[in-house]
Amino acid sequence: MKDATVRKVCVVITARPSYARIKTVLESIRDHPRLELQLIVGASALLERFGPVIDVIRKDGFEPNAVVYMVVEGENLVTTAKSTGLGMVELATIFDNLKPDIVVSIADRYETIATALAASYLNIPVCHVQGGEVTGSIDEKVRHAVTKISNVHCVANTMAAERVIRMGEDPDTVFITGCPSIDLASRVVAQGQNGFNPFAKYGGVGSAFNMEKGYLVVMQHPVTTEYKNSEHQIEETLEAIRTLGYPTFWFWPNVDAGSDRISKSIRRFRELHHIPFIHFFKNLTPEDFLRLLVGSKCLVGNSSVGIREASFLGVPVVNIGTRQERRDRGANVIDVIYDKKLIQDAIQRHLHNGRYQCETLYGDGKAGPRIANLLSEVPLRIEKCISY
Amino acid sequence: MKDATVRKVCVVITARPSYARIKTVLESIRDHPRLELQLIVGASALLERFGPVIDVIRKDGFEPNAVVYMVVEGENLVTTAKSTGLGMVELATIFDNLKPDIVVSIADRYETIATALAASYLNIPVCHVQGGEVTGSIDEKVRHAVTKISNVHCVANTMAAERVIRMGEDPDTVFITGCPSIDLASRVVAQGQNGFNPFAKYGGVGSAFNMEKGYLVVMQHPVTTEYKNSEHQIEETLEAIRTLGYPTFWFWPNVDAGSDRISKSIRRFRELHHIPFIHFFKNLTPEDFLRLLVGSKCLVGNSSVGIREASFLGVPVVNIGTRQERRDRGANVIDVIYDKKLIQDAIQRHLHNGRYQCETLYGDGKAGPRIANLLSEVPLRIEKCISY
Amino acid sequence: MKDATVRKVCVVITARPSYARIKTVLESIRDHPRLELQLIVGASALLERFGPVIDVIRKDGFEPNAVVYMVVEGENLVTTAKSTGLGMVELATIFDNLKPDIVVSIADRYETIATALAASYLNIPVCHVQGGEVTGSIDEKVRHAVTKISNVHCVANTMAAERVIRMGEDPDTVFITGCPSIDLASRVVAQGQNGFNPFAKYGGVGSAFNMEKGYLVVMQHPVTTEYKNSEHQIEETLEAIRTLGYPTFWFWPNVDAGSDRISKSIRRFRELHHIPFIHFFKNLTPEDFLRLLVGSKCLVGNSSVGIREASFLGVPVVNIGTRQERRDRGANVIDVIYDKKLIQDAIQRHLHNGRYQCETLYGDGKAGPRIANLLSEVPLRIEKCISY
Amino acid sequence: MKDATVRKVCVVITARPSYARIKTVLESIRDHPRLELQLIVGASALLERFGPVIDVIRKDGFEPNAVVYMVVEGENLVTTAKSTGLGMVELATIFDNLKPDIVVSIADRYETIATALAASYLNIPVCHVQGGEVTGSIDEKVRHAVTKISNVHCVANTMAAERVIRMGEDPDTVFITGCPSIDLASRVVAQGQNGFNPFAKYGGVGSAFNMEKGYLVVMQHPVTTEYKNSEHQIEETLEAIRTLGYPTFWFWPNVDAGSDRISKSIRRFRELHHIPFIHFFKNLTPEDFLRLLVGSKCLVGNSSVGIREASFLGVPVVNIGTRQERRDRGANVIDVIYDKKLIQDAIQRHLHNGRYQCETLYGDGKAGPRIANLLSEVPLRIEKCISY
Repeated sequence: MKDATVRKVCVVITARPSYARIKTVLESIRDHPRLELQLIVGASALLERFGPVIDVIRKDGFEPNAVVYMVVEGENLVTTAKSTGLGMVELATIFDNLKPDIVVSIADRYETIATALAASYLNIPVCHVQGGEVTGSIDEKVRHAVTKISNVHCVANTMAAERVIRMGEDPDTVFITGCPSIDLASRVVAQGQNGFNPFAKYGGVGSAFNMEKGYLVVMQHPVTTEYKNSEHQIEETLEAIRTLGYPTFWFWPNVDAGSDRISKSIRRFRELHHIPFIHFFKNLTPEDFLRLLVGSKCLVGNSSVGIREASFLGVPVVNIGTRQERRDRGANVIDVIYDKKLIQDAIQRHLHNGRYQCETLYGDGKAGPRIANLLSEVPLRIEKCISY
Repeated sequence: MKDATVRKVCVVITARPSYARIKTVLESIRDHPRLELQLIVGASALLERFGPVIDVIRKDGFEPNAVVYMVVEGENLVTTAKSTGLGMVELATIFDNLKPDIVVSIADRYETIATALAASYLNIPVCHVQGGEVTGSIDEKVRHAVTKISNVHCVANTMAAERVIRMGEDPDTVFITGCPSIDLASRVVAQGQNGFNPFAKYGGVGSAFNMEKGYLVVMQHPVTTEYKNSEHQIEETLEAIRTLGYPTFWFWPNVDAGSDRISKSIRRFRELHHIPFIHFFKNLTPEDFLRLLVGSKCLVGNSSVGIREASFLGVPVVNIGTRQERRDRGANVIDVIYDKKLIQDAIQRHLHNGRYQCETLYGDGKAGPRIANLLSEVPLRIEKCISY
Repeated sequence: MKDATVRKVCVVITARPSYARIKTVLESIRDHPRLELQLIVGASALLERFGPVIDVIRKDGFEPNAVVYMVVEGENLVTTAKSTGLGMVELATIFDNLKPDIVVSIADRYETIATALAASYLNIPVCHVQGGEVTGSIDEKVRHAVTKISNVHCVANTMAAERVIRMGEDPDTVFITGCPSIDLASRVVAQGQNGFNPFAKYGGVGSAFNMEKGYLVVMQHPVTTEYKNSEHQIEETLEAIRTLGYPTFWFWPNVDAGSDRISKSIRRFRELHHIPFIHFFKNLTPEDFLRLLVGSKCLVGNSSVGIREASFLGVPVVNIGTRQERRDRGANVIDVIYDKKLIQDAIQRHLHNGRYQCETLYGDGKAGPRIANLLSEVPLRIEKCISY
Repeated sequence: MKDATVRKVCVVITARPSYARIKTVLESIRDHPRLELQLIVGASALLERFGPVIDVIRKDGFEPNAVVYMVVEGENLVTTAKSTGLGMVELATIFDNLKPDIVVSIADRYETIATALAASYLNIPVCHVQGGEVTGSIDEKVRHAVTKISNVHCVANTMAAERVIRMGEDPDTVFITGCPSIDLASRVVAQGQNGFNPFAKYGGVGSAFNMEKGYLVVMQHPVTTEYKNSEHQIEETLEAIRTLGYPTFWFWPNVDAGSDRISKSIRRFRELHHIPFIHFFKNLTPEDFLRLLVGSKCLVGNSSVGIREASFLGVPVVNIGTRQERRDRGANVIDVIYDKKLIQDAIQRHLHNGRYQCETLYGDGKAGPRIANLLSEVPLRIEKCISY
């Protein structure tokens, strides 16, 4: 019989970046003597056109307790709302059957609030990872709403902790653990490249090139509140990269309002132009992505990886547009608007200057075990009240 | 053709108390030259066993643009979560078809966050009424989460305004309008009783009594985080009232986790005891309820009406248990725990002391037109960012 | 490791009568060496106001693999449709996680078609129990639609088999197993009464009476296509029973469009009239219900039990209205319309004549093991084509 | 005020082919003095990656009363089941708000049964178009299940009528109207080509060619019960067409389990091979597709258009695989298995022989007005009973 002091911790993985951000936490929960991991995999983590993350998860040795399709097709504003609702309906049933002692909810996606709300209404305490950060857009509304619903807060740094507390959360429930995404970055640095060859391992679309001579990485997602401009936004980047003619790894966007438009623009661009120096990937394991990143000359786009992991890794970043607008950032980031000329200039500046120093702005690489320990010890309360 | 400067304001009514709280706003929107009212009626406002509020709404001259069943049966924690999800799915479709310019979301129920989240993901600005209040329990989590999602805040008083701003909302979006529920109370006072006879008008169950000689009103809802104790909680009150033997109007509880248990306890109590001095009602029009309240010697239970409207009306209140725990309250409230003796004593103290003075703690009775004006003028923005 | 030749059989129980009808099949599956039982309990089987069947199921030693709330509250036509849809959404997820080799779907309720459709779209073969029967009303549409979706048909008798085959099903997939509901009846007869005292065991509402002197059993459900007349329909029966003044056990109706109206009428009737000779029950175990039935002088109402089990048991039945209209029936049934006088006369006629002979019209009491064997051997095919 | 004798007819359009099949019915309903058209557009008819049919619908002058996203993303078996459930939930709400007198449900897709079931549970009579046909696969199960739920049957020919009646439907409710898809074909023949230039009008992907010299049309959908073989199935066709080197218009597949696999295979094929003589289209208006078809030398694939419209138009067809397996077909069809050599040979045979004579196997081109008239006159009954 299972020890009564063992806590069942349920984690819901719904997308590529969520898995990358939480992977070391999963490992630490699984390996903790007083924790039992309950894993739910759903939403875009199951969808083939984005490269099913569930395959990666299984390969990493995790077997989900439940899988759940919850994305309503359309990739627009309406269907994002509906996916959130459908996710709540299904997660409520699953939580009711798995009966976890605590649920971990990650970041600020629509599935995050579906997870947090479902658990809250079921009187299951919620631990929120990555609260208190500032980004603008719907993500920020959702992130702070999740903070107000959650009971335990694992934040990246003191700025985030301060914001969570100022929103009225009890300081005793706010913990600066660092962001677990940095753990992976730290591990990848420790391991080195080990002859990693992305062409051989992942295929992808486009011809191979010599990585030794330097390469760029592009990852640009739709901005949900500007999703109607997605075509224009991606085209400026495509133009900039085309003009530079520098070897480039390009990643398909996340599933979100606007990603269809981005994918379509990329496909049209490929049909129109001869761009043999760009190689397209759907999905790498989180480690392999970081391995690619750490070896790159510059990351281009609007991924939060540029703000977070790249800061720890010292990789130069050209951050485009509003998606990461107000995030706390390190010295490695140059911000530009959606303009091919400015994007091009910023990349060239970085190529000229080279790498930056490691900063621990988003964590020191030990968040996973720290959060697992916390989950095994923290008082489990569902009641809370604003502190003012 | 409709004037382009006319704003479509969509209000979602999902329960008896929500309708009472928002009715004067509905009237003011309908009558405003630059506003068009879109009314959605759903959830427990459609359910017969709670007395369908939709009939009252139609009688008041409002014709809903859409009705939507969204309560998953079970009245427990799981089904509350699932009802929230189902509500989001359906409201997203309805909003997408009605295309409102702004959505009004009321208070802190599960339908409130379903409404606010669905609208937010659809990039429709959300006006939240009754934010910034403090109550404890899941309602408080949901209320503050809705604040973090909303774009315009209509709050009851300066304390609420201060809390909303401290949570990081832009002070330019926070308006002290008073709570529209007080408008109805004010109107009922102005109209007087006019020979109102609840027995004749509503029937109900139990024998009639002479209202002239004084009566109590009982309204006690389940506390969702304590729903397993609902039977015990209601039985203490039933015992207290039985012992007093004072003429009493008793109202069935709201649909929520635990209300089945309360209803069952009341039925069993009725079968066991001869209690001819208690008359049971399902649902009165909001005005008639206030009419009944203003004529009563004391309100007993845990309804927010005791904290809010009763404060304006000067009606003595015995507030039981944790449901209204941390709300700002006036001099008219005596707080007691779930204990028949203490409940009985508090009622008797009130019966001895009589009525209190009018307080404008929750509003001055003019919130409806104030909010409608605001909705016609306030800048409609969906973007927002925490202010620190 | 589980033997590859063991088939996983998933049964979905969603209501009191479905459980009664399938119980011996569950037992036989559980005890079969080459079958593994996967049990899902949902819909009204979880709802307290109908007496949660899940408690009975657990007491009988079955532990569900999943429970799922799927009833949208309202008990009207709209919510029945929505419950069917919600059930499909949830059952699809559950089937996808449990991965059964075959799904068993029972009779003709809305959950039946939700179960059968979800399984079919998942390419899981469906075994339908109780197809080919004739009843009229929406149930009949649903029953025959389920036949057209299903791959294996376990029917009650040759008439049913013939109808299934005439609808175009391959005769090789149609098996006359008898209805498993008769198995329980047969078992109860074998066990005898054993001092069964329903008052002591179930409580219920109303005073106890001496069962030795004879009693009636009333079970009358709403007719979904006539649900607006539910009040009138039940009142005629209430009047008839009141006039007779004979000791009576009365059962609350199933959850279905109209059951709220019936429950309300019964409550109102009880408040109006002094009827000490009627005792009300919510839910007995299937065996105890049959025990009560076998000892009764007459069953009154519109339950299919009157047509099916009562025929095997030889219990006289007064069948009211259209609900069982076209079912094949035995000599023990007198059919009447909704008319208090006719109902009263028919009861008196039965009281005068006494019990009937056992008929095996719906089975010989050995359906459970027969169906389990079938499930272990029948070819599992999902493809099928109309036979003409 | 609307005349009480005007019937509200609600039609649900959910996919490209459904719209094509029902368009003349929509026109005839709209133009009928005693009918009012209520149009709902949902599911894949809204999805951009399949070319949103709703744009075509609006251009044709129809304004939907409601649009509804209901496809759960994943394009596999689980999500098809979930989409059906989600569709039922949403359509029930919409029907409840629109209150149609009759609902028209088309063919055999998952949305068809969602439509028919939702309407049935709401006691709205259902008119099913295209019942009684034989095809094999899950579609056939669904089609016949819809027949058993529906109240009025508009079938294509005497064989279909006979099957519907043999399934137990009342012959008085079965009408041989012909299939309305043939109406469009007939109209297109009457109008002639009128200088139709698909390259100019639709763009598409791939270079233009001279249509005067003859061309093929390929339309191959996934077979849901064989969806794991979708890649192989499409590759044989791709190989056959590549070898022939004949100018070809190729259409992307329907949204269904397996269509992602097909799309991916086509994209990979395009990257691998130089195939300038294939031009890819997403979506044409139904008329333009027929215009393209009538001018083609041969239709290749597994679309039902090859069996139905092509028979009326006399266009040669190479029908591949099991999808149309048991349909009644004319002389213009050569059936082959998934084999590049056989596909190639069959095309060459047709190219050599040329066009066929017009057959009215699926209709004479006047179904639209015939069905509209029927809808205005047919007795509206919801009750029905199997006829044996």
